[in-house]
Amino acid sequence: MKILLRLKYLGTDFCGWQFQPNGVRTVQKTLTEAAEMLFGEKCNITGCSRTDSGVHALDFAATVELSDSANKIPLDKIPTAFSRHLPSDISVTSAKEVETGFHPRYDVVSKEYVYKIYASPVCDPFLFGRVWHYTGKLLPDAAERMKEAAAEIVGKKDFTSFMAAGSKIEDAVRTVHYCDVTRDGDMITIRIAADGFLYNMVRIIAGTLVMSGSGKLSSHDIAKIIDKKDRSAAGLTAPPDGLYLNKVIYKG
Amino acid sequence: MKILLRLKYLGTDFCGWQFQPNGVRTVQKTLTEAAEMLFGEKCNITGCSRTDSGVHALDFAATVELSDSANKIPLDKIPTAFSRHLPSDISVTSAKEVETGFHPRYDVVSKEYVYKIYASPVCDPFLFGRVWHYTGKLLPDAAERMKEAAAEIVGKKDFTSFMAAGSKIEDAVRTVHYCDVTRDGDMITIRIAADGFLYNMVRIIAGTLVMSGSGKLSSHDIAKIIDKKDRSAAGLTAPPDGLYLNKVIYKG
Repeated sequence: MKILLRLKYLGTDFCGWQFQPNGVRTVQKTLTEAAEMLFGEKCNITGCSRTDSGVHALDFAATVELSDSANKIPLDKIPTAFSRHLPSDISVTSAKEVETGFHPRYDVVSKEYVYKIYASPVCDPFLFGRVWHYTGKLLPDAAERMKEAAAEIVGKKDFTSFMAAGSKIEDAVRTVHYCDVTRDGDMITIRIAADGFLYNMVRIIAGTLVMSGSGKLSSHDIAKIIDKKDRSAAGLTAPPDGLYLNKVIYKG
Repeated sequence: MKILLRLKYLGTDFCGWQFQPNGVRTVQKTLTEAAEMLFGEKCNITGCSRTDSGVHALDFAATVELSDSANKIPLDKIPTAFSRHLPSDISVTSAKEVETGFHPRYDVVSKEYVYKIYASPVCDPFLFGRVWHYTGKLLPDAAERMKEAAAEIVGKKDFTSFMAAGSKIEDAVRTVHYCDVTRDGDMITIRIAADGFLYNMVRIIAGTLVMSGSGKLSSHDIAKIIDKKDRSAAGLTAPPDGLYLNKVIYKG
């Protein structure tokens, strides 16, 4: 049988999602080891995306395939059962059975990321590693400017300019469903959903939107940046600390 | 001159506020070392209270006394200047000059603590070390029961029953201004203010209120526990992780 797990993890002490040949601590490795302890057999775990080192997930989806001889654990007991084998920075929040043909990556309809920018000269100890602590200058109406620029990101476009240089992807066309910016005191939050994301796409969008907030770009520049299909036209890649995979949506 | 600093710290990696003879990492030690780098002289730092190992502060007050030959830093630049010398789990949020007779501990009019209980079978990685992860049983109306019991704590009373056994304090009478309980999903928050707190008082109150939430005590039992003036009459001492010093109020 195939089980779809929903997870949360604090990315700070993980070298991203994916297994790495050098054996470093990744979410996939940690989850696989816990699953093998729990189900009593070799487990093949597939994730919905490959988050980078330091990136967090409030809702990550992954499947585990089990043979008929695996330990039987009722689905509703799986999250608690996992908690006995997982470290404190990762937890399984739900488990449900899916068809064997289900693929947690290819079957994604939409994903939502949140990017948090803490714009204050002094960092907040409770936010360290969980936001981009931005100490550069921002205009008083930074959030409004960023919101205007963010609106230009929305739609079906070729996002080559917002893809890490050197990525080997032939088709960089993605549909961004929404991209919104809100401000609450010193915290600026970007919320973006799309049918798919290119490598570093949200972090480059965050870095570029901050340039609008500091007056270095206007919202009109966003269309020009997209048209150039050139990574160097966009802003810097914002740090992983502020990035959260927030929602993964499947059909049905 | 004497400067009143307001601080925030994540208590997880500190062995509490106060200097310890064995040189372990405490907030007072870390802050003193930073202050000495910043002001270029030996600094005498006095805190508003002695938080325990693992206890957090969202608003802690401490004074630093400076001689006339100390490095001159404008008051409004002090928080940012400190941030260059402090680790990520502590920050100075404001600085103002006070009279030399001011004492950050004896001049406190009221302090507010917050205690957070996360009542869910599976912990949230983002809350680890920042809440009491309570996996015991609670009644469906736990928050209402705890709120009723909390109301019995309010007033001028002898809180010997809510003081760590062996504390050497002659007068255990304190005035609790309010003690309220709210629930938001799995998070139960206790908010309590008093003119002063005994050693472990909030943690013992939290441990006792949870007993009301699980039906082991009724609100009527609280008055009986107080009357006994005996630590063993109250509930367990809740862990430090959920405790936050939230507000320190001075005259004027």
